Amino acid sequence: MDSQSRSQQAALKRLKIGHLSVNSLWEGILKKDKVALGQAVSLIESNSPKHRKIAEELIQKAIQYNKNLSFKIGVTGVPGVGKSTFINVYTDMLIRQNHSVAILTVDPSSQQSGGSILGDKTRMKDIHSLPNVFIRPSPSGKQLGGVANKTREVILLCEAAGFDRILVETVGVGQSEISVADMTDLFLLLMLPGAGDELQGIKRGIMELADILIVHKADGDNALKAKTASIEYKRALKMFPPSDSSWTPVVLTASSEPVSGLEEVHHQIEAYFKHTIANGYLLVNREKQQDIWFHECLENEFFQFVQTQTGDLYQKLLQDIREQKITPQTAARKVIESIYLHDKK
Amino acid sequence: MDSQSRSQQAALKRLKIGHLSVNSLWEGILKKDKVALGQAVSLIESNSPKHRKIAEELIQKAIQYNKNLSFKIGVTGVPGVGKSTFINVYTDMLIRQNHSVAILTVDPSSQQSGGSILGDKTRMKDIHSLPNVFIRPSPSGKQLGGVANKTREVILLCEAAGFDRILVETVGVGQSEISVADMTDLFLLLMLPGAGDELQGIKRGIMELADILIVHKADGDNALKAKTASIEYKRALKMFPPSDSSWTPVVLTASSEPVSGLEEVHHQIEAYFKHTIANGYLLVNREKQQDIWFHECLENEFFQFVQTQTGDLYQKLLQDIREQKITPQTAARKVIESIYLHDKK
Repeated sequence: MDSQSRSQQAALKRLKIGHLSVNSLWEGILKKDKVALGQAVSLIESNSPKHRKIAEELIQKAIQYNKNLSFKIGVTGVPGVGKSTFINVYTDMLIRQNHSVAILTVDPSSQQSGGSILGDKTRMKDIHSLPNVFIRPSPSGKQLGGVANKTREVILLCEAAGFDRILVETVGVGQSEISVADMTDLFLLLMLPGAGDELQGIKRGIMELADILIVHKADGDNALKAKTASIEYKRALKMFPPSDSSWTPVVLTASSEPVSGLEEVHHQIEAYFKHTIANGYLLVNREKQQDIWFHECLENEFFQFVQTQTGDLYQKLLQDIREQKITPQTAARKVIESIYLHDKK
Repeated sequence: MDSQSRSQQAALKRLKIGHLSVNSLWEGILKKDKVALGQAVSLIESNSPKHRKIAEELIQKAIQYNKNLSFKIGVTGVPGVGKSTFINVYTDMLIRQNHSVAILTVDPSSQQSGGSILGDKTRMKDIHSLPNVFIRPSPSGKQLGGVANKTREVILLCEAAGFDRILVETVGVGQSEISVADMTDLFLLLMLPGAGDELQGIKRGIMELADILIVHKADGDNALKAKTASIEYKRALKMFPPSDSSWTPVVLTASSEPVSGLEEVHHQIEAYFKHTIANGYLLVNREKQQDIWFHECLENEFFQFVQTQTGDLYQKLLQDIREQKITPQTAARKVIESIYLHDKK
């Protein structure tokens, strides 16, 4: 057991999860009891088969119970763009309009960046204690697929608990933004003022995912730079082919500290939901996301299966392919054959 | 046997492939014998296990023989942009500089668009008969993964035969462009003059793959429009984050009929190869592509395996997920379990 698993086990012990039943947790979740919800999320994150079993029963209940009334918003952008401050202020706006907000993060590299998450938590303290706000940092893990799928499960529980706005923040870099786009209804991209300069930090293909692009920190000396940047981004986005949602991506300037432009952000977010409900895209997209989720789970299960069944074969074949000893097609067939043969022993 | 397979079998019979040995075909390929190469490609395309076996032995020989000296160029763009005419003229340029050129197409929907391929062939007749040119339309098929992997195998044989420039043209729409980017060194995107209007036909994310973007048909009345479009595209591409190759995408205007601007296209293509050889990206990218190929083969083999082993279970679970009866994670585990149980019977 590595140190991460040990501290996870210790945390689970402190929560006395072992003594909790599926039914009591489920009742707690339905009452929007944040302690019960938090314990259920810990079970989802746990690697223990016993915890996993309870977690799956809860998720199974949630998937049958949910009416798909929650809206899920992905929030991404480079470190320093002010994602946490934005989420803090935006959540406050939502709460005043009687929404319930769950805030989750996807961060496959959270072990490395523990400091920044702590920083986020401090800044989130204003809203942390509100009964209609649930904040949960990412389940940590090495494999993005695993982390993403656990986040999907947490989303289902948050929805069952009655949180009707679920914000999923990316903290990691690289593929996690794309993964978040695959589990949310709307993709919000925050950019720094000074178009072009900060693009170094953003992976190719991310800008095309944005339904709403916010040039953030557009205050004081930055206001003019942000305005210029937003014009550039608008022009660039026009060059993109239209998205399947037929929603034309919106570029806005905003600041969360001091607050300005956020009413328009909120207005556009709601307009996006209205648009995609009206043309049916919201539901079509969610169905597609379910298929993607199944496919990812199947892939994860398959690779675990291959590793337990074939031992070092997979790694050896990968090496042989790189050294041009074998074709990828032949290597793939060898993997499948070895599963057959192993079972016939 | 469907009509497609029947005509394929008839074609194979005409070629008398059944009587050919691996060794005679391999020797023919090494001598750049276009008949032998064509027969080998037919074996790759065949669904018969006997043909498949010979094909795999040839591919195995090719992968061990190849010194990776061929450059692979993906050519894409909407129908009507003039891909065939461009390829025709560009190939002619390459031949005059003592290159050998293989031209392949990836088109998972070729059964529907048989007419356009016939059209292409007619236009290709100028170069078709040259000894240093090998032209082969796409292996047809319903699954892009299968078509793409067969094209990868054909590329290996073309390389073994000594074709040092391999052009892979996309004919289909949708995912095939991305697939082609995964098997080539350089991605050429042809656009029509009149920026913006023609974007409807291009899938999101394709523009970001382009290493060289050509505003094509920039002749006569279109010349000015093409110039304006190229300025717009340059501005748009600047908004994209830099690619892993650290090559800055180039936007050019050109016409193939009458010919103008193609020297600069050729110059930039060669500059791209020099750049990516110098910084090591060319090889790194090819290794990554090998991994992707292996992964795709494994996935294909796995899904075939699942279908033969579990029957209708996969489809039933997909339906249950859509009806929110079961979670994707549980469904994935059921698939894997059913493989175990089936084998234990």
